[in-house]
Amino acid sequence: MESTTIEVRVRYAETDRMGHAHHTHHLVWCESARTEWLRSRGVSYARLEDEGVFLPISRVQVEYRGAVGYDEVVRIETWPEAVRSRSVTFGYRLTRESDGTEVAEAETELVCMDRRRRITRIPEAVRSVLTGGSAGG
Amino acid sequence: MESTTIEVRVRYAETDRMGHAHHTHHLVWCESARTEWLRSRGVSYARLEDEGVFLPISRVQVEYRGAVGYDEVVRIETWPEAVRSRSVTFGYRLTRESDGTEVAEAETELVCMDRRRRITRIPEAVRSVLTGGSAGG
Amino acid sequence: MESTTIEVRVRYAETDRMGHAHHTHHLVWCESARTEWLRSRGVSYARLEDEGVFLPISRVQVEYRGAVGYDEVVRIETWPEAVRSRSVTFGYRLTRESDGTEVAEAETELVCMDRRRRITRIPEAVRSVLTGGSAGG
Amino acid sequence: MESTTIEVRVRYAETDRMGHAHHTHHLVWCESARTEWLRSRGVSYARLEDEGVFLPISRVQVEYRGAVGYDEVVRIETWPEAVRSRSVTFGYRLTRESDGTEVAEAETELVCMDRRRRITRIPEAVRSVLTGGSAGG
Repeated sequence: MESTTIEVRVRYAETDRMGHAHHTHHLVWCESARTEWLRSRGVSYARLEDEGVFLPISRVQVEYRGAVGYDEVVRIETWPEAVRSRSVTFGYRLTRESDGTEVAEAETELVCMDRRRRITRIPEAVRSVLTGGSAGG
Repeated sequence: MESTTIEVRVRYAETDRMGHAHHTHHLVWCESARTEWLRSRGVSYARLEDEGVFLPISRVQVEYRGAVGYDEVVRIETWPEAVRSRSVTFGYRLTRESDGTEVAEAETELVCMDRRRRITRIPEAVRSVLTGGSAGG
Repeated sequence: MESTTIEVRVRYAETDRMGHAHHTHHLVWCESARTEWLRSRGVSYARLEDEGVFLPISRVQVEYRGAVGYDEVVRIETWPEAVRSRSVTFGYRLTRESDGTEVAEAETELVCMDRRRRITRIPEAVRSVLTGGSAGG
Repeated sequence: MESTTIEVRVRYAETDRMGHAHHTHHLVWCESARTEWLRSRGVSYARLEDEGVFLPISRVQVEYRGAVGYDEVVRIETWPEAVRSRSVTFGYRLTRESDGTEVAEAETELVCMDRRRRITRIPEAVRSVLTGGSAGG
């Protein structure tokens, strides 16, 4: 699957006393990247939730390769790695924009739920986008 | 009004590259203190929301007196400073537990809203607690 | 003083169970806006700290005018409101990008400190930028 | 190895628009649990850093089993799972205090670094605690 790349600048509030971005923020940036992957293929995750489709995180894995500091720009590339009927796994590669060095690699699994938090099938329109089609296609 | 005091230990994730708790976390601790003020008088804010009563923040003011570092224990004392029909102001005093030095003083105003985010009157049972009575009293 | 405006998109992680951005994140966005105000006038706050000049927050005040939800774009306009020898106050106006409605108004006071957290004078080069000159100008 | 268990109450600021704790906060709670595991065996992580020993995160993995909501109490149990000369892996089990249901399982790997962020050996005194001895033992 094709990937989407976003850039975020490390915020002061995201650093910790070690002087670098705290490791939890990488997952927040991955979340933003995922939203943009969907948006750039015609899917608004905000609207999905309004329609009763939720994709909470069921598993995360991050390998940190190097620290990234305040005010540095991080590139987050993401793509769907595996699409199943009720869940999807996204992959991520995080690099420092200035020199291209790797910051982290990550993987998050999302499971499809309805309003009552029951696991359910990913709607066909979304699944089609995740597997390479486009919304409304 | 009588106050309630809670203690929180500064988390690593709450520090920033300056080596101390980032200034936004003080407001999160105040929020926890407020929840405990209510709980210790018989009011569960979680339940209030389930019943359709919301108290979003309409104004905050914090004066920072001194930095507080990782792993230090902070005492947050809170009390209702002014109770009106549709809003309430809480006051806070934050001190370092180890030596009693002042960390910050704060004030937050909360406005009462219903599910549709329309400003509404604070329910009588809650108002009575805020002005010195007790829930169901 | 002239202002600088940045845009941020509300992240999922920044929302709370009320469905909107939690009130502490507005201060994080203000921090980013401040960094950009300085950068667009030739001052890198990251470099300032590397050189031993720190500008911790000594006071914040935020008036919230309306909620802002997940995935909405917020415009944060900032400008130095008052410049003193050892402190500076920035003002902020936050608006929803889609319709221009006001989200919040804020003010933060920063005090100048050295590496040992002693209050000190704002370096002349920075003060000159804050009062309307430019770095190195 | 023996484990240490802490309890944290889910803060309002930690919830997201889905109504539950955002998945990044579990890692913050794990961090607090880790600090307490060390403290209860005589090791202050704050002091370790002051002495130039840093344990940044090199890998995290979390499996989420169930959502946990605002104001609920979560138990985080942690223990060192594998101790190597330059890194250590901690395991975690998160359960809801009210009914004992599982919230998540996690694993984080920490690598030992010095002030210049060079990978180095875990100091013998710390390593001895991690493998079952006690500080100063």
